[in-house]
Amino acid sequence: MIGNFIYNTPTTLRFGKDAIKDLPGVMARYGKTVLMTYGGGSIKKSGLYDRVKELLSDFDIVELSGIEPNPKYDPSVIDGARLCKETGVDVILSVGGGSVLDCSKAISVCAKYDGEGWDLISGKVKAKAALPIVDIITLAATGSEYDMGCVISNTAINDKRAYLDPLMFPAVSFLDPEYTFSVSKWQTACGTADAINHVLEQFFARPCSIFNDGVMISALRSLMTNVKIALEKPDDYAARSELMYVCSWGCNGILSNGAGYSGWPMHSIEHALSAYFDITHGAGLAIITPRWMKEILSDETVERFVTLGTQLFGFDKALPDNEMADKVIEAFYSFFESTGIPMHLAELGVKAEKIDEMADHILEFDSTNEPWMYAPIGKDALVRILTESM
Amino acid sequence: MIGNFIYNTPTTLRFGKDAIKDLPGVMARYGKTVLMTYGGGSIKKSGLYDRVKELLSDFDIVELSGIEPNPKYDPSVIDGARLCKETGVDVILSVGGGSVLDCSKAISVCAKYDGEGWDLISGKVKAKAALPIVDIITLAATGSEYDMGCVISNTAINDKRAYLDPLMFPAVSFLDPEYTFSVSKWQTACGTADAINHVLEQFFARPCSIFNDGVMISALRSLMTNVKIALEKPDDYAARSELMYVCSWGCNGILSNGAGYSGWPMHSIEHALSAYFDITHGAGLAIITPRWMKEILSDETVERFVTLGTQLFGFDKALPDNEMADKVIEAFYSFFESTGIPMHLAELGVKAEKIDEMADHILEFDSTNEPWMYAPIGKDALVRILTESM
Repeated sequence: MIGNFIYNTPTTLRFGKDAIKDLPGVMARYGKTVLMTYGGGSIKKSGLYDRVKELLSDFDIVELSGIEPNPKYDPSVIDGARLCKETGVDVILSVGGGSVLDCSKAISVCAKYDGEGWDLISGKVKAKAALPIVDIITLAATGSEYDMGCVISNTAINDKRAYLDPLMFPAVSFLDPEYTFSVSKWQTACGTADAINHVLEQFFARPCSIFNDGVMISALRSLMTNVKIALEKPDDYAARSELMYVCSWGCNGILSNGAGYSGWPMHSIEHALSAYFDITHGAGLAIITPRWMKEILSDETVERFVTLGTQLFGFDKALPDNEMADKVIEAFYSFFESTGIPMHLAELGVKAEKIDEMADHILEFDSTNEPWMYAPIGKDALVRILTESM
Repeated sequence: MIGNFIYNTPTTLRFGKDAIKDLPGVMARYGKTVLMTYGGGSIKKSGLYDRVKELLSDFDIVELSGIEPNPKYDPSVIDGARLCKETGVDVILSVGGGSVLDCSKAISVCAKYDGEGWDLISGKVKAKAALPIVDIITLAATGSEYDMGCVISNTAINDKRAYLDPLMFPAVSFLDPEYTFSVSKWQTACGTADAINHVLEQFFARPCSIFNDGVMISALRSLMTNVKIALEKPDDYAARSELMYVCSWGCNGILSNGAGYSGWPMHSIEHALSAYFDITHGAGLAIITPRWMKEILSDETVERFVTLGTQLFGFDKALPDNEMADKVIEAFYSFFESTGIPMHLAELGVKAEKIDEMADHILEFDSTNEPWMYAPIGKDALVRILTESM
């Protein structure tokens, strides 16, 4: 069954080899003064920085560089918003991965708000306007290029928030798979793990339908097959292009229209991990995934595991349900491990003594235990998942 | 591989039981004077007409009724555009199936054009503006509620044109599966056949990807499974809701981004059939489909048949390719037949003596023989397909 939903994703995708040749014409629709945001300089190494500057030689460009993974409210969002206000920026051009884009989205609303920006991000105040955003995405992972969300950390209060507003849909996203050829094995594996988790967060929900299940299982099959190829052969265009496209579908709802909202519990757990230990988002998700699955497995949820077992992994339909579920959980564990992700949080520097505090933090700031959720879990379960993940 | 593409679908879907309760608020965004378009009166029988009038009691409503299947430029489009100009319509509300909506889309551009509307529809002149369109769709079939196209017949010159323009994306589409409970078995079967054909027109294209193939096969599986349920039990909400949702994906490109454009040859053939004999679009497509498949089957195309055979129908992977292809063609024939569609054009009133003229017409107005197409076919092949279909 397809349940009630409202859906709109107004972003234009411009996908493919040298798609950015059309950048000047696209940018000109929004104005002349551009805030160009980027990260640690990989776009300078790859030549993308020079290419963009050359394409936009007729524009006035203000730069904000050094945006960090797990982007921070202070200094990046604050600095960006201030620059926009001071220089009268018309449009933001985000060049980089999901973190740069998430930061740019937060800047886009904070630049149009006179109060404390964190009040918007934390949901205290509703944004009324935003600068338009164009992005060139260089990492297949978060899907930020095709959704209205951003995740921003506030290190002063150990908080990491997922903030959603339709004002933050990018106007136009450029996706050229060739810019992902230089992405490291580690980032390729973690980016794909993030995207796989986006699908799973939506797959474990009700009601189900043949169509949504099939679309999500196709996404998982594509991600799991193509990441193996890309890890072996980083410049395989076919694999990189499919990873990039499928990742873009991750978080805008198109995978699960009418399927209900699960509450994204694994992301809630990972956001606490990243807030406390600044670990790589996708790695945290990969480690949590099989432990979360084990925790929520029950007579009520086993049908989802059976569907994954038969349709994604091709396991024997005659297997007893619980055996099938165990095999599915093992299959995800082995898959993530095979992409080079260490499957224990301790290896990423997470300290067991913080588990109790993190569990409280999750329940206070994110919540995994609302009655409307697909499989609500309380503190004991959170502690078990985190302990098992160590 | 995902090839280069540009994609944007700005329409908002408002899906589900009693979704139209929000109609007044949505309409108010666009103005106060509404052209309400509908067909032969089935919306009066179902109570939808009264419900809409009640919801929009604060609006000024001008009505255009009697829009026919295979909607006609003269009189419907011409009358609608004239009404809009005379009464200063702000927004069009289309209430009905794909034909009513297609007609409304054509009206939306013709209402903003001072010359002969057919010049827009036939592609001679590019439209510069359009009235906004809101629709309440009552038939799961064409996908017009989520795309920028319309198909309009000009009986004076035996022409039926597919006309595309981003100006014609509906602003908002309301989809309430309950309004399809009263759709007849014949229209349910033909609507689904139309949607199945939309998927197949995109499936037979290059390049392919795991993801696009999986999404399209999921759409086919969903349509083929749910139509059987809906034919047995017309008020099955789960089946009707899934049919309605999957149909909406048919023609906006989301099924096949980066997969190349096939040229939609089966639609080109069917448009000639409808233009000459005014047959039901979906029935014509169902009849043509297996014959077209047989005609284009070759060493180059057999891979597409094998993918359908193994992934959609679950046929034995060990079967020789050509045997697999034959089984796929037979499976589609049997499926359409099982939904109650007569599998011979003669039964719909098509006359064999027009085949030669229709083949010429297709090549002149629609074309199936361009070198960039997936499987170009010339006059001899068109005559064979039409003759086999009789």
